[in-house]
Amino acid sequence: MKKPEKITSRTANFAKWYVDVITQADLMNYGPIKGTIYFKPLGYKIWENIVKIVNAYFVKQKIENVYFPLLIPQDFIEKEKKHIEGFAPELLTITKVGDKNLVENIYIRPTSELLFADYFKAEIAKNNILPIKLNQWSQVLRWEKTTNPFLRNTEFLWQEGHTIHASKVEADQFAKKIARFYKYFLENYLAIPVISGQKTEREKFAGAVNTYTVEAMMQNFRALQSATAHFLGQNFAKNFEIFYKNKENKSQIPFQTSWGLSTRLIGAIVMVHSDDNGLIFPPKIAPIQVDILEFFSKKNQEVKIFAKKIAKILKNAKISYKIDDTDQQIGYKINNSEVHGAPIRIEIGPNEVKNNQICLVRRDNHQKFFFNIDLLKEKCRKILEQIQADLFKKAKIRLLENTVFVNSINEFEHAVKNNKFVIAPFSESPEREQEIQEKTGATARCILPKNSFFALPQTGNSIFSGEKTNKFVLFAKSY
Amino acid sequence: MKKPEKITSRTANFAKWYVDVITQADLMNYGPIKGTIYFKPLGYKIWENIVKIVNAYFVKQKIENVYFPLLIPQDFIEKEKKHIEGFAPELLTITKVGDKNLVENIYIRPTSELLFADYFKAEIAKNNILPIKLNQWSQVLRWEKTTNPFLRNTEFLWQEGHTIHASKVEADQFAKKIARFYKYFLENYLAIPVISGQKTEREKFAGAVNTYTVEAMMQNFRALQSATAHFLGQNFAKNFEIFYKNKENKSQIPFQTSWGLSTRLIGAIVMVHSDDNGLIFPPKIAPIQVDILEFFSKKNQEVKIFAKKIAKILKNAKISYKIDDTDQQIGYKINNSEVHGAPIRIEIGPNEVKNNQICLVRRDNHQKFFFNIDLLKEKCRKILEQIQADLFKKAKIRLLENTVFVNSINEFEHAVKNNKFVIAPFSESPEREQEIQEKTGATARCILPKNSFFALPQTGNSIFSGEKTNKFVLFAKSY
Repeated sequence: MKKPEKITSRTANFAKWYVDVITQADLMNYGPIKGTIYFKPLGYKIWENIVKIVNAYFVKQKIENVYFPLLIPQDFIEKEKKHIEGFAPELLTITKVGDKNLVENIYIRPTSELLFADYFKAEIAKNNILPIKLNQWSQVLRWEKTTNPFLRNTEFLWQEGHTIHASKVEADQFAKKIARFYKYFLENYLAIPVISGQKTEREKFAGAVNTYTVEAMMQNFRALQSATAHFLGQNFAKNFEIFYKNKENKSQIPFQTSWGLSTRLIGAIVMVHSDDNGLIFPPKIAPIQVDILEFFSKKNQEVKIFAKKIAKILKNAKISYKIDDTDQQIGYKINNSEVHGAPIRIEIGPNEVKNNQICLVRRDNHQKFFFNIDLLKEKCRKILEQIQADLFKKAKIRLLENTVFVNSINEFEHAVKNNKFVIAPFSESPEREQEIQEKTGATARCILPKNSFFALPQTGNSIFSGEKTNKFVLFAKSY
Repeated sequence: MKKPEKITSRTANFAKWYVDVITQADLMNYGPIKGTIYFKPLGYKIWENIVKIVNAYFVKQKIENVYFPLLIPQDFIEKEKKHIEGFAPELLTITKVGDKNLVENIYIRPTSELLFADYFKAEIAKNNILPIKLNQWSQVLRWEKTTNPFLRNTEFLWQEGHTIHASKVEADQFAKKIARFYKYFLENYLAIPVISGQKTEREKFAGAVNTYTVEAMMQNFRALQSATAHFLGQNFAKNFEIFYKNKENKSQIPFQTSWGLSTRLIGAIVMVHSDDNGLIFPPKIAPIQVDILEFFSKKNQEVKIFAKKIAKILKNAKISYKIDDTDQQIGYKINNSEVHGAPIRIEIGPNEVKNNQICLVRRDNHQKFFFNIDLLKEKCRKILEQIQADLFKKAKIRLLENTVFVNSINEFEHAVKNNKFVIAPFSESPEREQEIQEKTGATARCILPKNSFFALPQTGNSIFSGEKTNKFVLFAKSY
């Protein structure tokens, strides 16, 4: 009989706990090259579920899917100095094909603004139709110094949306709209509460005018930038000389946006919801919503029949499930189900069969329910909804309880040391932000909007200069 | 008012016709690096439709989706000499990251057998469960000398399936089963008739024991290898030292398969069905099944209302559509619809509105239908079915009429010169195959199975040696 592997506890070593969970839950294996991973079926299924939901929103917004090349030529790189500076040390560079040296280096996309700019230029020259709203589901590669599965990989999967508009306001509003959708998606599907806002000058995307971000709190109180939308202004359009003709037939430079979310969210799901027994999936994104565990089914064929009956009901209710019909011991089966994170498990032994009874256990709080099989569909749906709501609530309370408002440098340092998210009045320079990072390890996550759910005062005194400001910035240690 | 661009005729220049069609139909733009393309929304939508259908089959077969790295390390490359020899000149090689030289080169996957072998080794060592059936939707890169959009790209999208089995027969049968599915998919969804069979030693996949292929005939009578499934035997398992324990707890080497279809199929759809007016989509794979053309709608609001009414009916019938509500002239609109390949167009002018009448035109044969709007759903469905059947029939007749059986070298050469698919009794060496290619330009496409739809004799005399053989091989010039 198999024995379960041990998962490190979160308090003992959070980083090790995370890796234990994602490997034992069969989300991934390490790849052969630093920072790469094999997405195993369960890990990839999470991504497929994310894609399905997010893509449906894009289709509704008349955003069209495309696929653009992985390879970027040398001359594109030279066009966009500011943008490329941000990515230069991470660029994977192809210099050879077979035995032959290339005349010009080719780069693997770290993101595709340059390619979309090139495409937009040709399309607009041909058709002069704006806006164009495109998206691609693909991967990008960045050679990061420190890698962490899902959170920071050399290669990761994402969607990158790119739009181009005649109007500056329209473009900026569009980026904001996407950021609002990201917040909605994280909160309503992944049960991850976020703080959203604009990035500071220092933290914004290389080449953007504004970056809108959604920031989540992990169980170790670190921030994870979970998705971003950028208003690019005319930065790329100018360098690529993109022009459209307005109604007066005058050449104008259009405005662009870009926005993305990635497989990093798989890491977020794990680090926000899971516990020392393993993964806990929010029902709406769970690859498998119900584990059906057969006990003693080898000696008792009726257990198997009962399991099939349950499976049929779940299938009709469009609830995903998996039957564990192996010969492993009960303890192993329960443990295995807990590790893999199905929100609900149903345990079937001879007693359940005899009484036509369901024994249902919630993964998140181990609450047990007993009821007649006739109630299965209804009960299951309700409990899944309840789990979804409870996971969000738990994470939201954690976020609120661990976010503090400070008015001085001392309070700031103390709060960061205590692993808090810190909100401070702040209207200072990027250099000052860097100092803060060097001193405390915390970075500016975002400038809070006026309508933030934190009851902010109208103004405060910026924590270094004491200057009066109405800008409040969220700081935290982050991934 | 816009004027339509001119499409080169197929007889004037088939290659130019092909490029005219795929560019004017907005399937793609050329990418900035040789052999790369921008998949435009319409082109990518074809792929999305293919993915949906093929993936549903995989799910039914309990093949699980994964995502594995793009990057292959140096030491993997060294493990598989025979396999890599086939790809070596095409390998894109990363030697630098940012300004720094890598200690070891990294290669971009031309296919992922090496990575799957590495993954299987670890999984089987851990769980000892067989078979494992995996698939990934991804891209691969091969630096080809001659490139052609969709048909032969430096980067192309595909699915690559990889399985590993305890039994040799099971693995070989599985590869054959997938090849049968490919044939079914091409014939029933893409309306492309194929000849299927096993590849000769010379033509099989680098590293395979057997390759099963489906070969289609383009309108210029060239063959296009449209999908392949490989039985890999123990070739990769041996080099990667993959072992499983059988019931007697003895270490055994398992057997593998791999199989794929790619965006090359987009090229096949175009080259099998389209005409000098542009694209013709088989209804089952068409991104848009019905173009609704508004005529004079600017002066006549009722045309717009009628178009919306039609759209609503089609939406309820799950028939995809697009409304052309632009101010372009009638001729331009019709031409534009023909270029983009929707199987059906519906033309709405004031007369149609007045009579509550539908004027429907088939894209493939320009047949016109007039009927009351109440019949729209039923008629549309029937006509779409009819178009699907007719496109297949037309292509099948072309294939049969242009495939000839030969008994001598003279007949062979004559037939190839006349652009025929040639079936010949053939039991000779790879060197002889090469001679044939050098002399005639034709290559062996596949060994015909006994149950081929061509009524083959029991035996024949191999066309060079005269040796008696029961092997009949299909030869053709190919892409």
